This record gives sequence, C-alpha cells and structure tokens, in this order.
Amino acid sequence: MSSNTFGKLLSVTTFGESHGPAIGCVIDGCPPGLALDAGEFRADLERRATGRSRHTSQRREADDIEILSGVYEGVTTGTPIALLIRNTDARSKDYGNILETFRPGHADYTYWQKYGVRDPRGGGRSSARETTMRVAAGVVAKKWLAERHGVTVQGHVSQIGEVVPRGFDASAIESSPFFWPDAGQVPELETYMDALRKSGDSVGARVTVIADNVPAGWGEPIYGKLDGELAAAMMSINAVKGVEIGDGFAAVAQRGSQHRDEMTADGFLSNHAGGILGGIASGQPVVVSVAFKPTSSILIPGRSVDRAGEATEVVTKGRHDPCVGIRAVPIVEAMLALVLMDQALRHRAQCGDVGAVPPRIPGTLQGASHD
Amino acid sequence: MSSNTFGKLLSVTTFGESHGPAIGCVIDGCPPGLALDAGEFRADLERRATGRSRHTSQRREADDIEILSGVYEGVTTGTPIALLIRNTDARSKDYGNILETFRPGHADYTYWQKYGVRDPRGGGRSSARETTMRVAAGVVAKKWLAERHGVTVQGHVSQIGEVVPRGFDASAIESSPFFWPDAGQVPELETYMDALRKSGDSVGARVTVIADNVPAGWGEPIYGKLDGELAAAMMSINAVKGVEIGDGFAAVAQRGSQHRDEMTADGFLSNHAGGILGGIASGQPVVVSVAFKPTSSILIPGRSVDRAGEATEVVTKGRHDPCVGIRAVPIVEAMLALVLMDQALRHRAQCGDVGAVPPRIPGTLQGASHD
Amino acid sequence: MSSNTFGKLLSVTTFGESHGPAIGCVIDGCPPGLALDAGEFRADLERRATGRSRHTSQRREADDIEILSGVYEGVTTGTPIALLIRNTDARSKDYGNILETFRPGHADYTYWQKYGVRDPRGGGRSSARETTMRVAAGVVAKKWLAERHGVTVQGHVSQIGEVVPRGFDASAIESSPFFWPDAGQVPELETYMDALRKSGDSVGARVTVIADNVPAGWGEPIYGKLDGELAAAMMSINAVKGVEIGDGFAAVAQRGSQHRDEMTADGFLSNHAGGILGGIASGQPVVVSVAFKPTSSILIPGRSVDRAGEATEVVTKGRHDPCVGIRAVPIVEAMLALVLMDQALRHRAQCGDVGAVPPRIPGTLQGASHD
Amino acid sequence: MSSNTFGKLLSVTTFGESHGPAIGCVIDGCPPGLALDAGEFRADLERRATGRSRHTSQRREADDIEILSGVYEGVTTGTPIALLIRNTDARSKDYGNILETFRPGHADYTYWQKYGVRDPRGGGRSSARETTMRVAAGVVAKKWLAERHGVTVQGHVSQIGEVVPRGFDASAIESSPFFWPDAGQVPELETYMDALRKSGDSVGARVTVIADNVPAGWGEPIYGKLDGELAAAMMSINAVKGVEIGDGFAAVAQRGSQHRDEMTADGFLSNHAGGILGGIASGQPVVVSVAFKPTSSILIPGRSVDRAGEATEVVTKGRHDPCVGIRAVPIVEAMLALVLMDQALRHRAQCGDVGAVPPRIPGTLQGASHD
Repeated sequence: MSSNTFGKLLSVTTFGESHGPAIGCVIDGCPPGLALDAGEFRADLERRATGRSRHTSQRREADDIEILSGVYEGVTTGTPIALLIRNTDARSKDYGNILETFRPGHADYTYWQKYGVRDPRGGGRSSARETTMRVAAGVVAKKWLAERHGVTVQGHVSQIGEVVPRGFDASAIESSPFFWPDAGQVPELETYMDALRKSGDSVGARVTVIADNVPAGWGEPIYGKLDGELAAAMMSINAVKGVEIGDGFAAVAQRGSQHRDEMTADGFLSNHAGGILGGIASGQPVVVSVAFKPTSSILIPGRSVDRAGEATEVVTKGRHDPCVGIRAVPIVEAMLALVLMDQALRHRAQCGDVGAVPPRIPGTLQGASHD
Repeated sequence: MSSNTFGKLLSVTTFGESHGPAIGCVIDGCPPGLALDAGEFRADLERRATGRSRHTSQRREADDIEILSGVYEGVTTGTPIALLIRNTDARSKDYGNILETFRPGHADYTYWQKYGVRDPRGGGRSSARETTMRVAAGVVAKKWLAERHGVTVQGHVSQIGEVVPRGFDASAIESSPFFWPDAGQVPELETYMDALRKSGDSVGARVTVIADNVPAGWGEPIYGKLDGELAAAMMSINAVKGVEIGDGFAAVAQRGSQHRDEMTADGFLSNHAGGILGGIASGQPVVVSVAFKPTSSILIPGRSVDRAGEATEVVTKGRHDPCVGIRAVPIVEAMLALVLMDQALRHRAQCGDVGAVPPRIPGTLQGASHD
Repeated sequence: MSSNTFGKLLSVTTFGESHGPAIGCVIDGCPPGLALDAGEFRADLERRATGRSRHTSQRREADDIEILSGVYEGVTTGTPIALLIRNTDARSKDYGNILETFRPGHADYTYWQKYGVRDPRGGGRSSARETTMRVAAGVVAKKWLAERHGVTVQGHVSQIGEVVPRGFDASAIESSPFFWPDAGQVPELETYMDALRKSGDSVGARVTVIADNVPAGWGEPIYGKLDGELAAAMMSINAVKGVEIGDGFAAVAQRGSQHRDEMTADGFLSNHAGGILGGIASGQPVVVSVAFKPTSSILIPGRSVDRAGEATEVVTKGRHDPCVGIRAVPIVEAMLALVLMDQALRHRAQCGDVGAVPPRIPGTLQGASHD
Repeated sequence: MSSNTFGKLLSVTTFGESHGPAIGCVIDGCPPGLALDAGEFRADLERRATGRSRHTSQRREADDIEILSGVYEGVTTGTPIALLIRNTDARSKDYGNILETFRPGHADYTYWQKYGVRDPRGGGRSSARETTMRVAAGVVAKKWLAERHGVTVQGHVSQIGEVVPRGFDASAIESSPFFWPDAGQVPELETYMDALRKSGDSVGARVTVIADNVPAGWGEPIYGKLDGELAAAMMSINAVKGVEIGDGFAAVAQRGSQHRDEMTADGFLSNHAGGILGGIASGQPVVVSVAFKPTSSILIPGRSVDRAGEATEVVTKGRHDPCVGIRAVPIVEAMLALVLMDQALRHRAQCGDVGAVPPRIPGTLQGASHD
C-alpha cells in the first residue's frame, strides 16, 4: 500500500532525499539463488548518471552501492535485498535561492501544499535523484529476466525536440551520447544541444523501450493489465507527461483494418499493439514510448511566488541539463524490467511456470499445461 | 491485491463475463452517510450504453442496477456496496463463429495463452461489458467528490480519426451524439461515420477529460502519484493505447521556457502540466487525454489462426461499432473520478482533512494546518 | 487493500448484510482449470448452517449458491469467481426491539460509533451470516489443496464450557452433532446443552483444526508468516477471542528441552510447534486452536443504553444458539484452507513449484530445485 | 504486498540479517510535522536490548540509529523515514557449529526448505535481531498516538513458567528487571531464573500489553478488524505461539451472562472483550496477551539432522537467554502501537477525523459528524 513501494510480488521500496545522508531501496520478493554482487550495478548507474557527456548536467556522483542484506556468499537468499548509496555531492549552496520560493514547473509548490513542510535541498524527495534506486532495482530484474526467460530490454531516444531518427541501428545506441539509433545524426544533435545550452533553455524528449522474448501470457486482467502497470510505472518517472503502448496515439487516426495485427501459422504479421492484447503479452516484442517534458530548471528567469505569496522571479543557478530525457533511458528500461519480472512471478503463482522458452504461435497452440 | 480490484482506499472489485449470468462490482471504503439509490446510476449507464445513436452499435441493454448491500434506508453505511446487473441480451449465436478461432487484435489469443481455457461468449471477461461496472462505481465517486469537495468531472471526444474540433463549447458536449465540443461539426461527423460504417471498417478516437476544483495536495509521491495512477486507470480501459497528462507528447517538442507554468500571486499563468506537479495536484484543472484504437471487430475479413494453429479467416458478424471511443467518454470520466476519490481519502488519512474549498494560490500560501 | 477482502493472491471479497437482499463473495486469483459446480458448496454450507441439530439455533436457510462468473463449462477460467446467495429468511420483526438499543457484547455500539449509521437488521454486516461466504470460498480452496497437493483440512470441537474430550477418534467427528471426537461423551454433552438452553444462557467453545500434508516451505517471513496470517484469519471470525498454534499458551509453562521438536533422519519426534517454524511450514501437520466466546444473544436480560444514552434493558428474542462455537468448525476449516492456498500460490511465485508431493525430511534434504 | 512490510497506511518495511552489515526499516505514511530525532529511539531500544540484567543474554549492542530520510530540521516531512543500525557485534564464530545442521525448534530447517539457501550466521533473517526495527518504528507510532490522541501503551510480563503475579502495580513494571507488576516477587523470580540458567534450559512467558484512551471506532470490519490485525502483528513476533484479546481462552468456559460487558449511561461495567467488539474499538482499554515459547537455543544437547540428512546432535554455544519473553515487552508494545496508528489513519480516511478526545459513552451518543 505504501506509495513509495512499487510492484506486487517483486516489490521495491525506495527512500531518501536528494541531499539527505543517503538514498536506498529494499527489493522484496526476489527468488532465491540469483547470483548478485555490488559491482553489477555500476554499468547502469553510470548510464543514468549525469556527466555522461558534455550534453548533460555536470554533477558527478560515485554512486557506489552497498548491499546491506538479502545476499549471502554472492547469492540472493529470498529475503529483502537492501541497497544503499551515500550522497556525496551535496552542493546545497546551489539551491539556497529557492529555499523560500517555488520554482515554476517543479513539485516545490505541491509538496508544500500537501505536507505543509518540505525538504528544499535539491528538490528533496521529488528530485530525479530517487530514480537512481529504480535503476539499481532494475538491474536485478533485468538479470533475472535474462537468465530465467531470455528476456532482453533495450531503450533508446526516439525524439529530441523536433528531431527524430532518420534510421534505426540498434547497435548505434549504446555508443551514442544521446542513446540515438542513427549515428549519422549525432553531429547534428551536438550542434542542436550546444545551441540549446547557450540559450539557457531546455527541450523535451521521447524515449522508446523494447522488451524481446516476453512470453505470451504475462499480464493480469482487468486492473493489473501489463500495459496498465507499464503506464503507471512510466508516468511515475520524473518529468514524464505521456505513455504509449505500440502505436499509441497514432492509433487514433488508424482504421481497424490497418491496426489489428493479423495472425498466421508462422506468427503475427505486424505489431501495432506493441505486444499486448487485453492487458496480456502476446509473445511479440513489448514496445513502450514515453514523453519527457523539458526541464523547468533553466537559466531563463521565470515568474513565481514565495511562501508569503509575494511575486518573485526564479532563475536556476548551478547545474543545467538541457534535455533530461536523454539520461532517462536506463530509468525507462528499469521500470519496464521491474513490471515484467513482477508479472512473471504473478503469472507463475496463478498459472504455473511457463518455462524459459517464450512461446511462439505454432508451438504455443499446443497449449502449455496449466493448473 | 486482486487484479480485478482497483483503488487502495476506495476499492472497486468487478466480476462477470459478457454473456454470463450477471456482471457486478463491490465498492469498498466509501464513507458512510452518502445518499444513494439505484436510480442514480441510470444516466451514466445510458451515456455509456450502446445504442445512444445510429452511430454506435445497436445492442440495447436494460442495465438496471440492483444494490445488494452497503446502503440502508437510502444512505451508505460504510460497509461494501455491491452492485449487480443481470445480462439480458445474450445473443451468443452472434459469436458462434469465433469459438475456435482467435480474432485478430482481440484478447482471445492471449487469454487462451495465459489460462489455457477461456469463455469465448462475447469476449467473456475481456469484453467492454466489464466497463459498465466502472461507470457504475464512478457514479458513486462523482457524487462524493461533488458533494464533499465541489469537484466536477467532464469528458469529451477530442479527435475521431483525422477530425479534430474546430471550436470548444462545453455546453455542446452532452447534446452531441459524439460528445463533441463543436456543434457545427456534427453533420460532417455524421457523414464521416456513415461512410465508415458502409466500409465495414472502424476508426480510433481521442477522449479528453477534465476535473475542476481538485484541491492542491491530492496525490502521493513516488509510486502512488496522481498522474501515475491516472495512467494505470486509463490504460486499463479496453482499446486504450496511450495516456497523456496536460500537454502530453506535445511537450517533447516544447522548450522549458514555454512548458513551465509560471505563477503569480493571482495564480498560475498556464496549465501545460495538466494540473499535476511531482505527482501531486496543483489546484489547477486536472487534464487527461486517452487514445482509443479502432476496434478490431469489423466486417472486413482478417487472417488468423484457429486453436489447432491452422490458418483461417475471421469476420465479425452481428453488432458493429465503428468508433468505440465515442461511448468510452463516461468510462474515462469514471476512472478519473475513482482515482480522485481514492487519492482524496489517502490524503485525508496522512495529512488530515483539507476541507471542501479547493485552495487557490493566495489563500493556500497561508498553509492549512497539517498533522 | 479493502478491509472486506482477504488474501493476497487468492483473494476473497465478501459483501452483504444479514437481512439485506443477498450476501456474496468474489474469489480472485484461483488457478484456471479447476472443476467447479454449484452443488459442491452444499455440504459445507449445511455443516455451518444453523439447524444441524436441536442443539443449535433453529433458523433454516436454503443457502443455494449461484455461480455468477469465473466458471465456464464447469471449469474455472482464472477470472473472478462471484458467488451469490439470496437472503430468504429475513424475520426482521425478531429484531425490532434492538433498533434503538445497543446489545451488550455486540458490535451494535461500535459500528454506530465508527460510522454514525448502521443497518440494525439481524446485526447487519456484523452478523455471523457473513461467514457463510467464507465457508463457500473455503470449499474452492479445500478442493484445490486436495487435488494439487494432497492437503486435507479437518476441524473439531476440543472444548465446550468446562467439558473436554476424554478420547480422540477422528472418525467420530463428522457424525457428531457437536463435531466432537469422542462419541461416548455425546449423551453427556446433550444433557449439558439442554440444561444450558433451559437456563437461557450460552457458553464458549474451543475449536481445533488440523491440516495434513502441508509441504515444508509454505509461509513467508517476516510479516506474512503462515502463523501470523492464520492468527489474523481466525481472529477475524465472529466471537473469536484467542488463537493458538501448536501448544499455544501451554508453551508458557514449558521448558525449552520439552518444547523444541527434535529431528531425526526419519522425521520430527514431536509437534509442539504445530507444524510451523519461523513462520514457515515444517512439513508436519499444521495445528490451530481457536477460542469462541459465549454468544451475547441470550434470553437473560442485560443492562445497556439506547442511542439517546438512556439506560435500558436488552433481551434477545427469537432464535437462541447456546454455543455458537459448535457450528463454527467449517468456518475455521475454511479460513485455514484459504490461508494455505494463498501461501501455496505465493510460494510458487517466488520459489517455483514444489510439486504435489509434500516433502519429508529425508527426501527434502536433497533439496528441491529453486529459482 | 511485500511480506517484509507491515501495515496498510502506516507501513513499515524491515530488512537485514542478524550478522549482515546492517539492519534497518522504512516507515512510510507517517503524517508530516511530527518532531523526531535519533535520540528518541534509545530508550525503547535499550528496554529491548539484551543485557538489561544478568537474567537475559549478555550480547551488548550500541544500536545507534541513523535517520537516513524523511526528517528535515527535526520534523517529519511525510516522505519515507528510513532508519539504519550497523551490526557491530558479529561473533559469527559462535555459530560455526550450526552452519551445516538444523537447530531443533528453529527456522533453520524451514528457511532451507523454502529457499534452498540460507544465511546461517546468527539465524540470519529469522533472528530476533529483526525485532529491533519493530521497536524503532513503534517509537514513532507511540509518539504520534500520544500527541495526537492521548493514547498510551504499556506492556508487562504476566507469567514466567508457572509463576504469575500475585498483585498488580503498574508503577513497579519499569523498574523491574522482569517487567513484572509485583515488586515483592522479584527476589523469587531471580532465584527461579538463576536455577534455570544453571540447568542450561529455558522457559516460556506470557506478556500482556494495554492501550488506554483508544477512541471508539478504530478498526475495520471484516478482514481488517482491529483484533485480527493485532493477532497477526503479535503472532509475527519470533517465538510467539498464541494471542488473546481480553479474556481470550478463558472465555471458552464462561457463560454469556458473565462475559458480555453490560453498558450504562456512565460507561461499560466490565471489559471481558478487551476493548474490541466486532473488530472495532469500544473506547475501553485494548488488552492483548501473547504466549512466548521457551527458546530452543539451550545448553542441553538436542537431536537433529544435518543437510545431508545424517543424525547429529546440536548444542547452542555462546549467548544463552533463558526467557526470551521478558525482553519482548517493548516489541509487543511496538506492534500494538503500529497497529493502532495504522487503524487511526484508516479510520480518518473513511470516516473523517474524530479528534483527539477519545469518546466516552454519554458524549459519543450525540454522535460525531461523519462524512
């Protein structure tokens, strides 16, 4: 029930403020016997960390994870896995100017309205700093999904401002400073981002993530639908304003004869549905797209009010990240992995274990034994 | 947490198949003392019911609700409110042809993959028939929100296929066969829909719903965010493929200086955020848009497979609804109302009662007493 | 988590008041493929029903269950199973005298304090009538446990007032009007109960229920312990004031050398623990005992107050059940079965399927494969 | 849903093993504005800590709590409160002899059966070390209950082995090494415990805890009953085998005329019910008793098996606590306080705020406004 806990059977509880002593999470419900060590978190944490390139904010954090529980002799024991990261880069002085004011477009005002008290240092609990622990928990989910079911999860940036990829090359994504699937556009994007930074403004982004080898059958009607839980997971990420499954809003202008994915004995002929029908995985790739708004922390002054209700002007000093959507890619991947692993465990609970091989139409039509 | 239950403190559990004996729901957690009688459900059920006009499917249902519990002498008692509707219009013969085959774009295939058994009559549990009970539960939430907090919820169709409203007149919506906010376009839409029906095809739609007078402070970070739960609620509706809060995907191409809603002592200067910041209501109108795919139940034959894996062809006989998004308006309203009432109760639990008057910036900056 | 819903993965939501139109429940999370028909509920409902003998209250109910959903062609589909019973024996007139007063020892007063409104007819929601649906849901759990895991559940009355069984013969229980394990004592108990009825008073009872063949490993530390959830399940039954696992309160006066169950290669040497260690089943029989208070509905006048706070006197007219604990046996069995099935599904989710054969110490020491 | 999380609205998630790097908890849902600092935890942690007297085990821990989040400038902010304690007193060598064997009466065997892997150091997750964090969380609940509702919680030992208190003096409890309510019996108990320690054996205990000023109305029928959740809370404590509310099992031999608590305009005439009717607080003191088994960690050899299934003998070396029930008093208090605060928030959510003054019968019969 806790609003800081995510997931039903694989549940992740996060805690911590941006500039408090530490952030952390408790991962409960992980099956026993999964090999896990602290070093495995580094790669994804660095993918998320600011400072990946000159095109993102310059804050640098060690983000060394300490495993506090749930792992014995390098293997998960089935008890809660607690992860801890100490906050090393406080820099509270950068935020001194917003102690008494509400930054437009931020949660400053709403937290204050809800609780009547707030930790203003670096955005406190509402800072994207919290997403660090989502990425950490996602590492566990990604590993279990890959080992147990061969499921792979990869995200990329599918739009920055008005710019969309001209081509798609999955192998280009990881080497790109923008998680961009078309290496040829990187110089253009660098020019675009440099101009944006000079202007002191920011821009939105669209991130798309795809999960392959998801077995048909994962997902629970009616209110535990796979797409419904993906929508909640993605919308809970800071700065997200929209979520699409498969064709998403493009389906509004489509015809039924065009949208429906026809089937043959060899499989589906298209994937407009994004791998989900009736809230249950179809066995096709699960495709989710997310809209990130442009950050409101910009160098251009904005009108606001202070706690006394007096008009004031706010300018974000210190770090400036012109496109927060870029480094959100591992966060989106993590949320997809966490939802899939949770649904995998829930499916096993009710319907038994479907095994590691994702069903394909011909094979699955024999039907797996259920009980 | 049952996957057929929605909501944490105001929880709605629905049951029933499209052509089983009955459908129903259990509404738990409703405050005592709310006046309620069976007649109050009729209006919204008729708004949802097929047969509103010649532009939607011709199935007609009595949908008379029986209140089985939770109401004594016309007032809620705080115990579970059970609602029941008998299925009167079976028409199973219409569906005889799909007993052994999987309709492309439907949940037939995925239910069969998940459970190894399914009720094929009218789509069984995956039929939109289930949404009847969401609308019924939404009636209770709408009434409580209006009486207790002055919150109003109204939805409209904001796109059909390629057609978008030229103007916006809220008073035109209810009298429109399309829940359309521009009366002048109705003839054009009727022509559009007639052509579509003749073609035997279907089209998607976009529905937008707005809640006014939502008090600042409703919503729970981090995983119980108001927008996160709205996304889950909307994506759980049949045929939905996308959800947006405020500007949604349009924010991808916006600049931060353009998107952030500046504040003055008189209030916000814009509402790109759709009334939610950091997952918490800002006191502005809450704006949610939803993408409905074109129904896959069309008169145009589609390739599919049968349970033996053999190639076959599927044609939907019987009723044909060329744009299911139209009559989804009351469903979208209901889900918004249910999420808001649940969050209202959760806010009261942790932060105390904010009272019936929604805070405005000058007023609220005095800060309500919390405990 | 609705307070009228029980269980995490196998969740049962009950609704209805004693003299409202109907009572019912929604069973969600049941695995698909379980054969089920309405007739299977009759036996346990009759075991619970009043009127089993002259030694219990004379109210007679048809209690015919209608299956509203979740079963297709006699088999569960994995969707919610809704069960409905119409209330046929209202007799509201019997309760006319308590409309304005609070019966001592009943929930009349506390419901009124909590909600400010209550349905007084027959105790409304607080009536033992609600337990009918627990028994119905328990029938599903008992069947699945037996078919899938060979688990059997049987309860008996282990004390009535001061009377305890002299011997224990499991085969005597079902044929006894008192679910008593010593047939030789039945005449003595009949004399005891006749005297009690003449006196217009009531007496408490102790019920013990045993589950055999429970696989080692079911149960979840730390707050989802098998014994913790059994305690909640039993204490939620009307009139229950105490719960014991294994030796229970007798353990207070025991020595550690006496209580601990030693193990050999052939198995445990005793079962003081009642089959649960650290909240997890040990593979031994699970033993739970429950204390039922004497009903407060007696023919002897009692002092109370009315809603105006004026002193008054209350006498229960109409039906009189001198020992409610006797017919609670199937309710206690049902709650044990529901907890076990829920834990079985949860164990399968995290640790994989342990199979139908309950592990014995030698066998299990090889360890089942986990993932 | 997590089995390491306790509570619905005030939820406490604990983590950590006895000899891992640290133990901790995350308290979510606490109202904002509660003053809290790390020093406030010390008193109850010391009451629980071993080494209170020569009559309990000699392990001494600093148990200094670090507040990692949720508190800003000494006040709770409404975000999750994370508490951390580093394990300083590992002593793993004491446990070397049980790495391969299962201690009779411990969770060693069942954890291994469930997970196929376990952390054997000091009992790992199943160690009573986990209860340290329950006590810490209970400190927050006790403080909120006292400040907001004037509720006080106090526990005492009501039986050790065969010894029961001759008198009851609440003021004697805190100064007693046995939390015993009769100071005159302390010498007798010291002799009793010394003999027990010499024998190398252990004994059980009964702990009773009472909450005063609990407002009538707290508690939720049917499965969220106050007594049901108290039973789960208490049974989840290590070594607990039984739970009673009010008269508990004594009610089995009582008559209805004796058990029912009659009411007059001045209040109840007795409290056999232990302050709870129909699962809802009556406004009388809430009385809960708990049975603790004798610890199985004794110096007397016991028969057991090793992981290979071979017969072996187990002796507990190192620390030896002859009566674990004694220092469980603050744990029992903490669980009662956590259940009450959770129910207080849930009551406020559904029924509005009843205010800080617990209702008395005359006053409450006017009825508080509900909505």
